[in-house]
Amino acid sequence: MQRIHEYLEQNRQRFEENLVELLRIPSVSADGRCRGAIRQAAGWLADHLTSLGLPAELVPTDGAPIVYAESPAVANAPTVLVYGHYDVQPPEPLDQWLTPPFEPTVRDGNVYARGATDDKGQLLTHVKSAEAWLKTQGSLPLQLKFLFEGEEEVGSDSLNAYLDRAADRLACDVIVISDSSQFAPGQPAITHGLRGIAYYELRVRGAQTDLHSGAFGGSITNPVQALTAMLSGLIDASGRIQVPGFYDDVVPMTEDERERLAALGFDEPRFLRQLGVVEVSGEAGYTTLERRWTRPSLDINGIWGGYQGEGSKTVLPAEAGAKFSFRLVPRQQASKVTAGLRQRLKQLCPPGVRWELIDMHSAPAVLVPPDSPYVAAAQRAIEQGFGRPPVLVREGGSIPIVSDFREKLGVDTLLLGWGLDDDNMHAPNEKFSLADFHRGIRASAHLWQELSVLDSRP
Amino acid sequence: MQRIHEYLEQNRQRFEENLVELLRIPSVSADGRCRGAIRQAAGWLADHLTSLGLPAELVPTDGAPIVYAESPAVANAPTVLVYGHYDVQPPEPLDQWLTPPFEPTVRDGNVYARGATDDKGQLLTHVKSAEAWLKTQGSLPLQLKFLFEGEEEVGSDSLNAYLDRAADRLACDVIVISDSSQFAPGQPAITHGLRGIAYYELRVRGAQTDLHSGAFGGSITNPVQALTAMLSGLIDASGRIQVPGFYDDVVPMTEDERERLAALGFDEPRFLRQLGVVEVSGEAGYTTLERRWTRPSLDINGIWGGYQGEGSKTVLPAEAGAKFSFRLVPRQQASKVTAGLRQRLKQLCPPGVRWELIDMHSAPAVLVPPDSPYVAAAQRAIEQGFGRPPVLVREGGSIPIVSDFREKLGVDTLLLGWGLDDDNMHAPNEKFSLADFHRGIRASAHLWQELSVLDSRP
Repeated sequence: MQRIHEYLEQNRQRFEENLVELLRIPSVSADGRCRGAIRQAAGWLADHLTSLGLPAELVPTDGAPIVYAESPAVANAPTVLVYGHYDVQPPEPLDQWLTPPFEPTVRDGNVYARGATDDKGQLLTHVKSAEAWLKTQGSLPLQLKFLFEGEEEVGSDSLNAYLDRAADRLACDVIVISDSSQFAPGQPAITHGLRGIAYYELRVRGAQTDLHSGAFGGSITNPVQALTAMLSGLIDASGRIQVPGFYDDVVPMTEDERERLAALGFDEPRFLRQLGVVEVSGEAGYTTLERRWTRPSLDINGIWGGYQGEGSKTVLPAEAGAKFSFRLVPRQQASKVTAGLRQRLKQLCPPGVRWELIDMHSAPAVLVPPDSPYVAAAQRAIEQGFGRPPVLVREGGSIPIVSDFREKLGVDTLLLGWGLDDDNMHAPNEKFSLADFHRGIRASAHLWQELSVLDSRP
Repeated sequence: MQRIHEYLEQNRQRFEENLVELLRIPSVSADGRCRGAIRQAAGWLADHLTSLGLPAELVPTDGAPIVYAESPAVANAPTVLVYGHYDVQPPEPLDQWLTPPFEPTVRDGNVYARGATDDKGQLLTHVKSAEAWLKTQGSLPLQLKFLFEGEEEVGSDSLNAYLDRAADRLACDVIVISDSSQFAPGQPAITHGLRGIAYYELRVRGAQTDLHSGAFGGSITNPVQALTAMLSGLIDASGRIQVPGFYDDVVPMTEDERERLAALGFDEPRFLRQLGVVEVSGEAGYTTLERRWTRPSLDINGIWGGYQGEGSKTVLPAEAGAKFSFRLVPRQQASKVTAGLRQRLKQLCPPGVRWELIDMHSAPAVLVPPDSPYVAAAQRAIEQGFGRPPVLVREGGSIPIVSDFREKLGVDTLLLGWGLDDDNMHAPNEKFSLADFHRGIRASAHLWQELSVLDSRP
């Protein structure tokens, strides 16, 4: 690995320049105006892979193109599929960014830009590690299949369709994804569990037009008020979700699990400082890590209705809406949640307004076996990259594609997070540590070595 | 009055052209970008009054200029102050207007534009009636003082300051305002009661930045959820407002009042059709007219927080806010309501978030004696203008300046509404009937005659 290490050292600056190029492209998948940027980001990746000797294809889809490239099969070595996504979250609210979201800026050793950690920066570590192998050894020690999509932030519809029709092409022994976080700065982690998600939009309509709140107030139901009553009725003051059947399939935590989480030594004062909140809260009877990783939750992601401008407007709005989502834990089914939710909303909706629930997207939770040889290989590789063995953790967020891979390709995923939990993922001033970028590349280069000595399809 | 009637007939088209000129000016007082338009509307009115022989002054203020003009005092005749406002509500949501809000368009005998009925169209009727007197008789039969402000929709701060310093100049026997509605099409009304208002903005803040709802959901309080819980806790399912002391000063309705309202023959099926709602709702135990005119109410006027764009965003928002207002009835004091509200919000706010209540503006309710000679004079004048005697009604909305006039000038106000309750005041597609515009001018011309024979300061 000596020559690889040297190559990585010599090319640090160029790797960072490549990252900045990719981060400049405003590939926001939720925003229809960014379709050109989506194609541009896909094209950049395909060109880049091709230039490294990994001829890449832009797979057309109904939405964002999929970038696919593979290296030659290697006898007696496994095939690893590397997944990532080149689309990013919307950058709003723009006025809270210290530097513009698509003008990557380095401050204090971090690069600030939308997509820095989620997922362009992390994705690129695996491309750069492959580059180091190819440029120094002439070939990779195993077969890599790169699969990069542009719709991860909006439900991965096109990739799902592609998994159905290209399962043979994508056949592999294990999948590697870097789209998550270290446990703490300097403490790398392998994530073996993810929460699922069920995401909805709720719209409430009253009169056919906005009305004067003086002339009509008190005589018809205000849709904003109906909405607040419905949403606040979905959870009680002790943090229990009030949806029929919601907890039926939730597996209680074992004492072992609780002890393992407690042993991680979660730094709650640091957590509070980092977020700027005065106290934690949530479902009664659970610790913060338990709440984030192992318990289902409800968050309103957005709400709107009536007058939001400067000053006051005495309006009784005609309609209101909200986006909200449940985080799901293993065995919870989104379809069952949706059915209970409709039942509950029907109970909660006051007379005089109509409501519509839009089921936007969902993904089940996943748990991958922590004792597989792939996990052991990743543990060794990460220790080489970061100078410290990783801990096994779970994650509160969802990577819906992980459960799709399990279902459609029949393989488990190694979730190797190079990010930090204060990277402002999905928020203003998203960042990624450049030191972690390079450590991730080095860990990834070792990972190809460690995995190559395992049997294919063990 | 024969020559006046002829003059009004001959000048119908020009009067409508004048109205359209004034409606073209986007004088939105809540929008800082419209300051130029505010000055333009004030200037238009001042020039117009001056051109009619009523030399007008633009009174500078900290905000929008006040337009003031007066005709000479007339011996043994009362002085009447005519109040109106040239500012308008914000036109949003713009996409719901069939024709642009500041391009007045006539359809089916109505002029459609922001400000058509509230209040430019109604205000202008009194200017045009004065014009008819001046052009045909050479003088008015009593002294008129025109007082037009440009901050009615944002709390009338500058006018209030002006009332304090110009009480002598504004001294009068009675005030006339046309900024309300007829009871039904063809059934004019004199409004002798108005609800008051107490308008607030509530802001809730959680973490210092937006967070990923997967990584953090369930472990800290979501400010949008805190907001929905706080707002929905302000009113119960039976429509009773849950603020300590809120109903303490509310005077119960008498049987007489209830009978008088019932005798008006409110057409509820028409009301529902007009609004496009399937049923009425509100405080249990009251009719729709009672709820609108005589009972206090709560409306959320606007709400916002988190992601409102296309698609989905898995964000745990850093902050959320809402604008809401209570409608007050006689004897309720806004300061007492505010104190109870703060107490209630403190109870309702879940741990882990901070909230701020901004007291935006307020006005008490007013009730004017229905048996004064001024009311009788107005009844006769309106019958001349509209061909039918007016009924005495109350109104759910607030005209805060009416209580200020009572307090600071010591006089009552005649509220003579020429509008209709489906005029979409404060909503898209605001309109004003041109037939009512001309009937209002004629009623106003008669009003000067009827009032002129009353004693000054009776």
